[in-house]
Formats: sequence, structure tokens, C-alpha cells
Amino acid sequence: MKPSDGRSRVVIEDVKPEIDCGRHAAKRILGDRVRVTAAMYSDGHDHVAGRLMYKRAEERTWRYAPFRELGNDMWEAEFTADALGAWVYTVQAWVDHFGTWVHDLHKRIDAQEVPGIVDAVDASQPGGPEQNEGVNAVDQNTVAAQQLPGKQPGSNYGTNARPQGDVALALRSGAILLDQASARARDAEARTLKGTASTLRYMAEKNSPYYDFPLSDDCIRLCLEYPDLSFAATYDRELPLWVDRERARFSAWYEFFPRSAGQPGVHGTLRDVANRLPEVAAMGFDIVYLPPIHPIGTAYRKGKNNSVKAEPGDVGSPWAIGGSDGGHKAILRELGTFTDFAALLETASANGLEIALDIAFQCAPEHPWVKEHPDWFRIRPDGSIQYAENPPKKYQDIYPINFESSDWRALWQELYSVFAFWIDRGVKVFRVDNPHTKALPFWEWCIAEVRKEHPEVIFLAEAFTRPHVMYGLAKMGYTQSYTYFSWRTEKRELTEYMTEITTAPVNEFFRGNLWPNTPDILPEFLQTGGRPGFAQRAILAATLGASWGVYGPAFELCEHEPAKPGSEEYLNSEKYELRSWNRDDPQSLAPLLTQLNQIRKTHPALQRDNTLRFHNISNDHLIAYSKRLGDDVVLMVVNLDPHNLQTGWTDLDLVSLDLPIAGAYEAVDLLSGEVYQWHGSNNYVALDPEKAPAHILVLHPKHLSEMTAGESTED
Amino acid sequence: MKPSDGRSRVVIEDVKPEIDCGRHAAKRILGDRVRVTAAMYSDGHDHVAGRLMYKRAEERTWRYAPFRELGNDMWEAEFTADALGAWVYTVQAWVDHFGTWVHDLHKRIDAQEVPGIVDAVDASQPGGPEQNEGVNAVDQNTVAAQQLPGKQPGSNYGTNARPQGDVALALRSGAILLDQASARARDAEARTLKGTASTLRYMAEKNSPYYDFPLSDDCIRLCLEYPDLSFAATYDRELPLWVDRERARFSAWYEFFPRSAGQPGVHGTLRDVANRLPEVAAMGFDIVYLPPIHPIGTAYRKGKNNSVKAEPGDVGSPWAIGGSDGGHKAILRELGTFTDFAALLETASANGLEIALDIAFQCAPEHPWVKEHPDWFRIRPDGSIQYAENPPKKYQDIYPINFESSDWRALWQELYSVFAFWIDRGVKVFRVDNPHTKALPFWEWCIAEVRKEHPEVIFLAEAFTRPHVMYGLAKMGYTQSYTYFSWRTEKRELTEYMTEITTAPVNEFFRGNLWPNTPDILPEFLQTGGRPGFAQRAILAATLGASWGVYGPAFELCEHEPAKPGSEEYLNSEKYELRSWNRDDPQSLAPLLTQLNQIRKTHPALQRDNTLRFHNISNDHLIAYSKRLGDDVVLMVVNLDPHNLQTGWTDLDLVSLDLPIAGAYEAVDLLSGEVYQWHGSNNYVALDPEKAPAHILVLHPKHLSEMTAGESTED
Repeated sequence: MKPSDGRSRVVIEDVKPEIDCGRHAAKRILGDRVRVTAAMYSDGHDHVAGRLMYKRAEERTWRYAPFRELGNDMWEAEFTADALGAWVYTVQAWVDHFGTWVHDLHKRIDAQEVPGIVDAVDASQPGGPEQNEGVNAVDQNTVAAQQLPGKQPGSNYGTNARPQGDVALALRSGAILLDQASARARDAEARTLKGTASTLRYMAEKNSPYYDFPLSDDCIRLCLEYPDLSFAATYDRELPLWVDRERARFSAWYEFFPRSAGQPGVHGTLRDVANRLPEVAAMGFDIVYLPPIHPIGTAYRKGKNNSVKAEPGDVGSPWAIGGSDGGHKAILRELGTFTDFAALLETASANGLEIALDIAFQCAPEHPWVKEHPDWFRIRPDGSIQYAENPPKKYQDIYPINFESSDWRALWQELYSVFAFWIDRGVKVFRVDNPHTKALPFWEWCIAEVRKEHPEVIFLAEAFTRPHVMYGLAKMGYTQSYTYFSWRTEKRELTEYMTEITTAPVNEFFRGNLWPNTPDILPEFLQTGGRPGFAQRAILAATLGASWGVYGPAFELCEHEPAKPGSEEYLNSEKYELRSWNRDDPQSLAPLLTQLNQIRKTHPALQRDNTLRFHNISNDHLIAYSKRLGDDVVLMVVNLDPHNLQTGWTDLDLVSLDLPIAGAYEAVDLLSGEVYQWHGSNNYVALDPEKAPAHILVLHPKHLSEMTAGESTED
Repeated sequence: MKPSDGRSRVVIEDVKPEIDCGRHAAKRILGDRVRVTAAMYSDGHDHVAGRLMYKRAEERTWRYAPFRELGNDMWEAEFTADALGAWVYTVQAWVDHFGTWVHDLHKRIDAQEVPGIVDAVDASQPGGPEQNEGVNAVDQNTVAAQQLPGKQPGSNYGTNARPQGDVALALRSGAILLDQASARARDAEARTLKGTASTLRYMAEKNSPYYDFPLSDDCIRLCLEYPDLSFAATYDRELPLWVDRERARFSAWYEFFPRSAGQPGVHGTLRDVANRLPEVAAMGFDIVYLPPIHPIGTAYRKGKNNSVKAEPGDVGSPWAIGGSDGGHKAILRELGTFTDFAALLETASANGLEIALDIAFQCAPEHPWVKEHPDWFRIRPDGSIQYAENPPKKYQDIYPINFESSDWRALWQELYSVFAFWIDRGVKVFRVDNPHTKALPFWEWCIAEVRKEHPEVIFLAEAFTRPHVMYGLAKMGYTQSYTYFSWRTEKRELTEYMTEITTAPVNEFFRGNLWPNTPDILPEFLQTGGRPGFAQRAILAATLGASWGVYGPAFELCEHEPAKPGSEEYLNSEKYELRSWNRDDPQSLAPLLTQLNQIRKTHPALQRDNTLRFHNISNDHLIAYSKRLGDDVVLMVVNLDPHNLQTGWTDLDLVSLDLPIAGAYEAVDLLSGEVYQWHGSNNYVALDPEKAPAHILVLHPKHLSEMTAGESTED
């Protein structure tokens, strides 16, 4: 079957960003310049032109940005994402007959015999002009005018038209193109184009022996603004884009347990949490993330250190959600009231902090949903509800939700309403527990539903699972995700993994959040690395990732005893009991965390992930990487060995750092304040983990005038 | 908006092959095993299963092939392409509850206390069984049975069901799954499944202290054959596949000019061409490609050596198609009649050859289309028809077709009818001249239209243009394409280019045909490399590519004089005059071409492109590469320097060659017959261009028993 218009000759391919053929949205940040590239080509030698069509999803009319040619049939266009939420874009391209004509006219004019020069040639070279291709061509032009059937002698463009020069005929072709553009333009612009067409015809009439190029750049630009779109091709698909607020890209998270926020031995309250906030804010964090604050089940409640039987007074796991006081929309009685919660959010706001709630869609046996909607759970052949298990392990305090429930529509609606409930109460950031154990289509719907009204909401996926599933959750809409960083400790694996998640295609939709520890993860490295190990991991997380987080105060107090050898669980974990933390410990890493967050806020290069680049360094215990945005150039060198001094020579990619190949420059260590005089790519580094596990260096070329201020246009 | 069924939990992504989101077909050969890979995953720990759905495009019902897990959520399935033409495939996947159940049951059974061993533990370890997780679990199981609203006491699965062990309850769950599978099965299989369900229930009733795993592998396999597809997910798109005959992948082309096929100074005829065929067949070629055989225009006819003015008797360029005798459906009077043409095809067939015609959609001024359809061409403002030009160059003997003609439907139909005309007369292979100067959408339609009735037709694109356009033509349906091989002479560029076109994604849709020369291309290398240069290029083309071709006899006679310095045109080109070739020249490379085609026919590894792999060799003038298919292993080492002896040490990837890492093996040179005793990856090579510009080595490990016969499953 023939296409609807076979004259649409341009092929558009390879549009980027494009996630799974447009099934999922690429992600950008409010204010970003969104760069779209595409392959556009046609047959033959005709010029091609194109425009990016883009709009907010709810807008009716497209906006346009012109494509610029990059060479080899690749093109780029940009627009500014000036509103949060859903956008779409696609590509339109057409054969640019006017552009082809301009290009050819230049060549025709260049090939003319300049009268004076012709004489000169004639005089000096025997046979000169006769042998000249151009002159021959003009002669033969006459004959090229074939008699056309249906054309009457004497008609304007008939076979009796008088012989014309090549350029004159081209001018007449151009006049037609300008007339056509004029018909698409309005008012003064239309008149300008029309007038230029007349000028070209007048020049053609003169049939001069020599022509100058007749059009100004302005006139050409004007004509290109009114392209002939009759045969324009439009890309098959409209591609979705999601625009988040800046915190989606650049954030520092601090997690702590409300239960331990009070006086030693006393169950903490939301008021205690509020009192802690100034201290967290002083450390420079943006988001305070609280484990679930809901009523905790009593059936099968876990005791201290996850013991199967709770003792009287044991507080249970906050992730065993639901009791007689309610479920996901209630607050644990010991923590306080909704009034306290409102006050907490106010204090947070006053301290420049946001509160992130933990949404864990699972139920303790006493959760109201269990009674009201037993069909939202799996029923075993004996009529009992299936608890969580990984045979032979059983988690009888937790009922997972059955996403194959025949009542799935009501279930989805209720789960969604949990987000809506807390959003109504001012929460704009959610850390979602084990999202990979809930149906992915649910997340796609739920996150979109939330964002219809609240595009500012941020979802962090606590997905420590297989790569496809982690990336899948990001595609379904998650703003950020936990990463494997927690276990990546060696140079090769850090380099490979961070490169994977900070470059295309992954970084188009996935934003990693780097956590050295969580309440569930005390990595072996932190168990054995001592205080230098904690410092090193904080530095890596805060500078490799634009988003990072710690579970404190366990982190800054270097809590490192596992529940048992080989386990990543904490001994005496706050998940099962109140803890009291000595936050005044002089060994606390709080000053380092403060310094790191301060450095991050001062250096825009550290506020995004696509600025990351690794450099060679001559020691596998040292890792070197930079982040550069425009003239903000920060170079990190970190000692990955928490026990020994390591030394080495950098082998910096100076071009990527915008540094002179052989020049001298200053390297100012933002951690120590020390200033080094460096030169070229090879510089000596010695890092003693006890004193300074890393350099965070701002690089200043000696001659500022040599610097060029390129600017990255996207996330 | 919620999806139609949110219980469809499996995500299917990253299906390969998939060209431009299924916009274009991947290509395979009749009889190929077509391997499809996909990412398939769901939430949680449930098992996933899937099947490839595939069929010929015109079939109504799908056929199925099961997916096998590759790890990391990647899966593969295969089917045999047992018919030419259009196929489609897609992927279906679902949560495999039965598979999950089997997996968990194994773990539950493994975790049981074996009665005898329990006693032993009991006797030897204080507190043994009581502390055992499994035993505790069984105890607590009772309590886990929550009272469900709506369930009546006394009902089968109610709260009064008597306490059961973990395994017993699991057996009852399994019985339900088997009953459900039984409902989907038929006859004996249904009865088997039903019977097994009863057995499981009987076992559960016994509530034994210890269970063995109850199902045979056969029973599991049977149950998996009747999966529950209620919530199966199907991939968004049906992906097209095109299946060609073998000649599409493996072919040796020989081009020559019919005009020079006769006696010296006499215009050759189709009868002369037929007489030449046994000689071409003896050289081992498959396809004889003839430049256009149609009437040649007289207006602006080009003279010898492309001179602007033809002398009387000059025969003109065969690509200036059309005269008073007709156009693309006529035969040049000097060549003969349609009867002669039929005889030619018969002779070709008798010699195991196919005739490829050259389809050049452009017209000499006298072509009938010009008179009958002036609107199929561009009209200049003076009413004349636009001839081909690249300002300031003019090709007044050629009128290009205007694909923006408002009469494009009739134009397309007429162009298509040219193919149909020659197909009706027995031609099944077309070499299309400059397809990149004709609208790509036309090709997509035209090739599909031809193949509706004639899937066996092969189209070779003479597209020496930019990469996107060359690949675009392949996507539009071209079977094969000319390549940049003609100009790739150095090791690095040969390695990069051949790797690009023989690996995914390019090799999914693009099949290169390697030509050392054409009538338009006498590369500088051949101008200066002498006979060893021609030999080297022939060896490279015939062994790097499964398809190759030469323009002869110019090639085997080492014709190397350019029209002028810096030009790639031949001096005294057959494009403009008759030539007489001394095919008995003892210096002719015909014996080498014969040998190369013979080697290609004997070695299946050389008959496909995806078998190619480059190896390191310690001299930039030497290139080493292998092709391996199963136990057919051929290693080429070619001296790229036509002037000097070059020596070096190979650094072979023995694993890819299926050779023992440290063993000895024989390397038999198929060109010279010499036998080398090689060992490991490093072997010394010396190649004298005058004597032997290359080794083509068959590698035989000393111990054949060590060889494993893997087999490639696709093109």
C-alpha cells in the first residue's frame, strides 16, 4: 500500500532521548536546556531542514525550535523546560528547496567568468575560455531547453523563451521560491519576500554576463522562517519528558529513627524529631527521611536484634505497619499526633529541610486492611492469609499485598490514597520501601496519578534488586533510586558502575542516590574500615553522586558492629529497639558531613551527575574523578584503602578539565585548605587515611583568560 | 487512567532484533534458527515464564517457542525460518505461579527435619530441634492462620481446618495449581494433571512428618505446558522479520559490459554475453551483473572518456537510458532481442549463474517517459526539463526523476512495473543504480510490492553515500549494499568498518557486498599497487565479506590507468566505448578468483558475515581475521602492503577459534597448499606480496577429540 503522501521524502530516525521507543519519559530538571538529537536525511543532494516540536503535555499547540546540523546527517535542537511536569516532543523535517537553491546559487555564481578576469585569462592562456566548463555549460543551456508537449509557442515559459544564462534562470527559480514563502508569511515580511522575488526577476531579465550573490543573510533567514511544509515528515512518535524540581537531581538525605530522638530510654516523639532538625540542617542536609511513623503490629512482633519473640516493652519494627490505632494513614501513638506532625513540617520548613516519609506497602496482621479487605492478600488453602516468606524463612509479622487480587482497582486506589493523604498534610518526598516487590504497572499508574496535581513530589525507590528491575522502576516514574554504591568499594567497580548510571541511556531516566549505609545495610567495608573508612565512603558518596544520603547518627558515629559475623545487619539495630546516640562524641564525622554538604552547595559541578569523569591514577587504591560544569572544575582523589597511606601519580585528562595541556595551575583542597602547584596531567598525590582520606581540589589555571566557559545544557 | 488489567505484572523490554522500534524488518536466511532475546521481569520473587510468538505475516495463528532464562532477567527463544518472505514475532510473558511453587516446595522439603537425623541431632546437641527454625516455623504456622471474615466454621478451607505442616499446606496449594492446569489441558494430559492433584491432596491429608519431593520432571514439564495466561503481558509491538534465500547472504558477483563481449571492435550482443558465461561460471561466480541493456540516448551523448561531445560511432553511456526504441522495458538494438535475452537466461541457468540487471531510474532526453510524462521531471522556469547537475557541473544527457511530482502515484507504479517487467522475463536479481537519489519511501513501497509475489528477488543497492542513507536503504528493504570497502585499505579502517557492518545492530538489517573495483571506482590503491595490490584486494573482499564482486575483466587483468591523475575513473572506460580484453593474459588473476570462490564454497564459515573476528598481529601492514562456524575455522592473514615483504607475530584469540590455549595445531594454507605447525596464539608469519599476499589457513587442532562443535544459530 502506498503511503498517504509519497512525496514526504525525509527520514527521521534515532531521536534521543528516547526511552524504550517513547514508552517511558526521559527526565530533566526545571530550567534545563533540553537537547534533542536526531538523524534526518533525504534522498539526493537536496538540503534538509527540521524543527523540534515540543510542548507541555496539556498544551494544545506545539512550540518549535530549529534543528542545527551536526554533520553526518545528525541534528540537534534545544528548548528550555520552563515548567514542572509532563512534556512531549517530536521532530518534523522537510526537504529545504530554498536552502538547496541558495547553496547551488553560490556555486553557480562562483563558477561565473568574471568579465575582467576572463580577458586576462584569454590573453595569457591559449584557448582559455573556450575550454572552460562554465562557458561551455552556458552555451549548451540553450539546447537543454526541451520542447514540452502542451506548451504553446509564445507562452512565458515555453520553448521560445529566449536563451538565458545559468544564473539568470536560477534567479527566476529563486523568485518562485520567494513568492511561495511570501504567501506563507504575513504583512511586512510577506512584502519583503515578494519584493525580493521581484528584484530577482528584474536581475534575471537583465541577463547580465556576471551576477553577484543577490540575497542578504537577513533575507535568507526570513525565507527559511517560512518553510514549505507541504511534504514535511513527522517522526512516528511523540516522546514523553518529565521535568522535576531541582531537588530531584541534587539532594542530601539524612535518615534517623524518631523512636531514638528523645531522651535515653524514652520513646522519642515527633516533637523530639523537630528539636533535632536544626542540627541536621546545620550539617547541610536537604531532606530528613523518617522510617514509617505508623502504628506497629503486635502479632509476631520482632524483639531486639530481630529475635522471633518480642519481650514486653519491645517496640517492634516500624515496617510492621498497622494496629488497632490504624494503618498507613495513622501515626504511632508514642510518636504523637497530627498536630505534632504539622508542627514538625513547619520546623523543617523553617530550617530549610523537607521531611520524607517511608511508604512501605505491607501490613502487620492487625492492619485495618486485613480485616476490611482480606482479598487484597493471598489466601492459603487453609483459609489463612499468606505471610511474607522466603522458604524456609518466615516473616509472620508481615502480610504482603497481593497485586493479583481481583479487587485490584480498589486496592490501587487505596494505596494511591496513602500518598494523597500525606501530600495533603504537606509531605512532598517519599522513600518507598521495597518497591520492587509491588507490581510495576501499579507504580506507573500511581506515580502518574500523584503527579497530575503534584508534579513537585519526589519518589525515592529503595530498590536493591536486579539491574533491570531497578531501571524498570525508574522508567515507571521513580525520581531517584538507591544504588549498588553501598557495596562498590574498589576502583574498577566504582568506575564501571558510576559510569553506567551517569551516562546515556541510563542517566536519561535513572538518578542514583548514593548511601554508604542504611538501617538494613552495614557493609563489610564499614565494619572493618574504622573511622577513615566511614570518612572515605562519605566523601565518595557526596562527590560521586549529586544525591547522597546517610543513616545517622549511626553513620557519623561510625557504628560498625554487625548483628553477627557475615551479617550486614546492625547489632542492636534501631529497627527493633530504641537507641541512645552520643552525638557529642568528638570522633563524630558530623564536621566532615557538614563540610561535604557545604562544598556541594558551593560547586554547581557537584550538583549533577553527567559532569562526572574518571581519570587514571597510578595506584589501584587511589581513585581520581572530576566534575566540571562550565568553569567550575572540581577534582577528587580518594584513598580507597582505609588502613594505609597510598601514593600515586595522576594522569589527568586535561582537555575534559579545560586545563592547558602543559600549563601550571593551582589545586586548592577544599577539605584541608591546602594549595598545591600542579602542572600538566601528572601530579604526585599522597593520602594518609588517618589524616585526610581524600583531596577535593578546585583547579584554577594560572591564566584565567585562557578559560572558556562552556556550559552543559542538560542533566 | 488504570490499565485494562493491572494484574498483568510482567514487564517485557529490550527485544532483539528490533530495528527502529519495529519500523523495519530484521533480516535472516531461509532455514536460519532465528534467536530472539528479551528482558522479562516482574516484581517480587515470583518466577516468570514467557514464549516467543511468531508466524509468517500472512498466517492467522501464532506459533510458539518457549523462552529460556539467560540470567539477569534476560531470556532467549528460537525458531526456524522455514519459509521465504515476511514474518512477525512478539513476546508474551507471565508470572509462573507453578514454577514459583515448585521452587519453593524444593526449599521447604530441603528444610524439613529428616526424622532419623532429628533423633541423631537431638541426642548429640543440647536443645537441638527446639532451636531449629524449621520446627519453630511449623509450630507458629497454626497461629498464622488468621480468622477471615466471611468464612464459615466447618467450611473446607475455613479457620477450623486442622493445623498442618508447612509442606502439607504447600501440597494443597500445588493441587490447586495442578487442577487449574488440568482445566487448560485436554484428554489424557488433563487426566494426568488431575490425578497428580489428587495425589498431592492425599499426601497432604496424611500430614506426614516428612515428605519427599512429590513430582516427576515429566509432570512438571506437562504442567508448564499449560500455563495460566490470564494475566500474561504481551510486548507492545509485533516485530517484522524478512527471510531471504541464501544468495542474499552468500554471493559472488561478476560484472561485465555486454558491449565488449564480442569480437574486438564489434559491438557485443546478448549472444556474446551468453558465450562468456561458462568462463565466468568456471571462476566460481554466482551472479553475472550487466550494466543497463536498454536503448541509449543520443542527445548530449557522451563521447569516449566522458568527453562532452560524442564522435560519430560513439556508443554512449548505458546509464543514459531511453531512445526512439524505448526505455527501461526495451533492449538496445545492438545487443539483440528479447529472444536473445531469454536464451541468455537459459544459458546462465545451465551454468549455475543468475543474471542481475542494472536498474537506473533516470532518463535520456529521448526516453518515452519524457514525452509522455513531463510532469515526472522537474520543470525549470523557462519550461525546459531540469537535467542532472551538481553546479557548476551539468549532466545534460540525464534527466533525474522528480519524486515530488503531483503524479507520484502513477510514477511509482510505472517504476515498479519496470521490475515486474523483467521479473516476468526471468530476472530475480537487480543492482539498483544510485538508489540514494530516489525517494526512500518509494523504495520501501516498491521493494515490498515486488516481494509480495516474489520474495526470492534480490536488490543490491549501489549506494556510495553517507552511512545513515546507506543503512536507511537497507532498512527500506534492500537485500545487499555496496560498501566503503572499496576505499578501506589500512588495518585500522578495515577492522573498524568491517566490525561495524558485521555486528549488531547494523548486521541485523544491512548486508555488505565488497567490491574492490566498479566501472566508476578505480581506487588509488589499485592504481598504484600493481598485480599484488589487485590480488590482495580480491582476497580481502572474498574472505572479509560473505558477498563480494568485481568489475571484470578490468579487475583480473589489473586494469589500473586512471582517466587522469587524481581521478577514480578508468582511462578509456567501457562506460563510453567498446573495449577488447585479452583474457588469455598469463598475468590474469582469474586463477586466483577461481581459487577464492572455490574456497568460499567449501567453507561455510566464509559464507556468512557474523562469523568474522579480528585478531592482533604485530605489524600494521598485516591484518589477521578469522571466520568460524562450528568446527569450520578459517584464519586469514593478509599483507596490506603490495610492495614489500612483511613479517609479524600473530596474537590469536584461541578461545574464539576453539583451539586449545597451549596446544599445537596444523595450519593448512588453502592458497599455497603449504602446511604449518602452529602452537598457541603467537606464530610467525612472513608474506611476500609478489609470491603470496596472504594466508588463508584452515586450522586443525592435533586432537580432534578436543573440539566442540558449537553452531551459530543465525545470520
